[in-house]
Amino acid sequence: MYPAIEVAAVAASALYGILRGARQNFDLVGICYIAFAVAFGGGTVRDVLLDRHPIFWIANDHLVWIAMAIAVAGAFLPKLVSKLEPLLWIPDAMGLGLFSVLGAVYALECGTGRFVAILLGVATGSFGGVIADVICNELPLVFTRSPLYATCSFFGAFAYVLLEWLGVGSSLAMGVGFCVVVALRVGAVRWDWQLPTHAVEKKPSRRGDEG
Amino acid sequence: MYPAIEVAAVAASALYGILRGARQNFDLVGICYIAFAVAFGGGTVRDVLLDRHPIFWIANDHLVWIAMAIAVAGAFLPKLVSKLEPLLWIPDAMGLGLFSVLGAVYALECGTGRFVAILLGVATGSFGGVIADVICNELPLVFTRSPLYATCSFFGAFAYVLLEWLGVGSSLAMGVGFCVVVALRVGAVRWDWQLPTHAVEKKPSRRGDEG
Amino acid sequence: MYPAIEVAAVAASALYGILRGARQNFDLVGICYIAFAVAFGGGTVRDVLLDRHPIFWIANDHLVWIAMAIAVAGAFLPKLVSKLEPLLWIPDAMGLGLFSVLGAVYALECGTGRFVAILLGVATGSFGGVIADVICNELPLVFTRSPLYATCSFFGAFAYVLLEWLGVGSSLAMGVGFCVVVALRVGAVRWDWQLPTHAVEKKPSRRGDEG
Repeated sequence: MYPAIEVAAVAASALYGILRGARQNFDLVGICYIAFAVAFGGGTVRDVLLDRHPIFWIANDHLVWIAMAIAVAGAFLPKLVSKLEPLLWIPDAMGLGLFSVLGAVYALECGTGRFVAILLGVATGSFGGVIADVICNELPLVFTRSPLYATCSFFGAFAYVLLEWLGVGSSLAMGVGFCVVVALRVGAVRWDWQLPTHAVEKKPSRRGDEG
Repeated sequence: MYPAIEVAAVAASALYGILRGARQNFDLVGICYIAFAVAFGGGTVRDVLLDRHPIFWIANDHLVWIAMAIAVAGAFLPKLVSKLEPLLWIPDAMGLGLFSVLGAVYALECGTGRFVAILLGVATGSFGGVIADVICNELPLVFTRSPLYATCSFFGAFAYVLLEWLGVGSSLAMGVGFCVVVALRVGAVRWDWQLPTHAVEKKPSRRGDEG
Repeated sequence: MYPAIEVAAVAASALYGILRGARQNFDLVGICYIAFAVAFGGGTVRDVLLDRHPIFWIANDHLVWIAMAIAVAGAFLPKLVSKLEPLLWIPDAMGLGLFSVLGAVYALECGTGRFVAILLGVATGSFGGVIADVICNELPLVFTRSPLYATCSFFGAFAYVLLEWLGVGSSLAMGVGFCVVVALRVGAVRWDWQLPTHAVEKKPSRRGDEG
C-alpha cells in the first residue's frame, strides 16, 4: 500500500508544482523544475543529510518518469490541473503522512537520535514546498499564517518515534504515525487551524548583518 | 581539449557572476560568492546527489584559484568586464555543452538510469545560474521567457545517452552531445528561440500552502 | 573551552533566527526553521561538501536540543529577545571565530588544498546567515554594505592555515586564527569597517539568461 501512496503523493506534488510554475509565467523548463522541487526536495535533503545513497529518486526512477510525465502533460492542460486543484490536498495529506513517517524511520535506521529523527521527518514532509517557495521568490507559506502543515508532520513523526521506543511493532507504529499526520492535516484544512505569529518591533539590528 | 573548455567555461561563469553581483551593489564578498555559485553550483549539486567525492572543485582546485582571481580582478575592473559581456555567451555556450554532457557521463558511471542521467546533465548545466538568481532575489531567468538554455542542455545530454546506448564509442557520443548543445544554444541566442509559457488564472489555493 | 563557545554561538545564532523570523511574521514553525538555518546552515554545507558524516548536529544532538529550546522559549518571549539583541553580536563574533577556524581544520583533515580550506572556513562561518536571508526573501546582508563579516572569517582562516603550514602547533594556530576573526569583527562593528561596492551600469544582458 505504501508504494501506491508514494506515487499518489508524487503526482499531487507535481501537480502543485505545475500550478506554482504556471502562476509565475514559467515555461516548461521552470514548471518541470518546480514540480521536481516540490515532489523530491524534502526526500533529497533527508537523503543527503543522512548520507543515504543512491538518493531515493535515483534508486526509484519510476518516480522521476511519473513526475516528468505529469509535469509535461499538465503544462499543456492548465485548465484541467486547475480543476483538479481543490482535490489535490487529499493525496498531498497522505503523502505528508507517508514522507513524515518514512523520514523518521530512515533517520533511526541511520542511527540518529530520536529528536533528530522527528525533525528529519518534518524536513522530509515540508522542505519540498519551502524550496519551491524560495525559488518562486515568496516567503515560505508553511512559515506563515496558513493551516497547520509542518506541525502535523511533527506530531505524526513524534507518535511514530514514541511508539517505536515503547516497543510497539514497527509497522503498527508507522501506521499510527501516518494516521496522526493525515487526521491533523484534514482537521487543519477543514477548520483552518493555525499557529499564532510572534510579533517583534522591526528595527535595524546594531550588528548590521546576521551571519 | 576538454580541460581548456572547462577553464574557459569557469572563467565565463565567474565573469557573469561579477556582473550579477556588481548590479546588485554587492561588495567583494558578495561578488565572489555569486561568481562561485554560477561557476560551481551546478557541478556541486551533481556531485552531492551522486555522492562523488571529493567534489570536482575540491579535487581540481586550480578552478577555484581561477574563479577567485577573475572575481577579484574583475571586481576592480567593472568597465572591462562590461565590455567583455557581449562575447561571454560563446565560452558560456561551450561550458554548457561540456557540463551537460559530463553530468550525464558521471551519472551513468554512478549507475543511474538513463533518464536520470539526462536530467543530471541538465541540472549540471543550469543549476549554477538558478542558484545565483535565487540568491539575488530574482525569478530564475532560465524558467521564464528567454532564449533556450536548459532545453539545449536536455537535447545534448539526450543525444549523448542515446548514442552511448546504441553502442557508439564514448568519446564520439560525447562529442556529438557537446555539438548538439552548442549548436542549439547558438541558434537560440541568434534567433531568440523561446519556449511558450503556460498561463493559469491566479487564485489563492484552497489548501493555503504548498508543502 | 571550545564546546562552551560552540554552545554560546549556537544560542546566539538561534536568537538571531528568532528575531529574523518574528520580524517576518513567521509562526513557530518558521521561527524554528530560521533559527536552525542560522545556527546549523554553515556547518551543514561544510559537512556535506566534505562528505563528513554524520553531520555535526546529527552527531552532537545536544546542539539541536539547545537551538530548539531557545527557539521555542524565545518565540514566546519576543521582548526579552529584543532586549538581548544588542549583546548578541559578542557570542556571535566568538562563534564566527570558532566556526571559521574549525571549517578550515576539518577541510585540511579531509585532504583539501589550503586555499579551499580557507574558503570552507568562510562558508562555515557565513553560510547560515546567507541561507536565512534567502529564505526570508532578502538580499544577503553579508554581500552588501555592512560591517565586515565574511572578511574577518577569511583572514582568521588564512592565519590558521598559514601558521599550520609554517609548522606551528595546531592548537596555537587555531587560537591565533580564532583571535584574528574575533578582533577583526569587534573592530568592524565598533568602527563600522565596510568593503566598497563595485558599480556597473544596469543594462539587460544580450544573452537574456545567466546559466
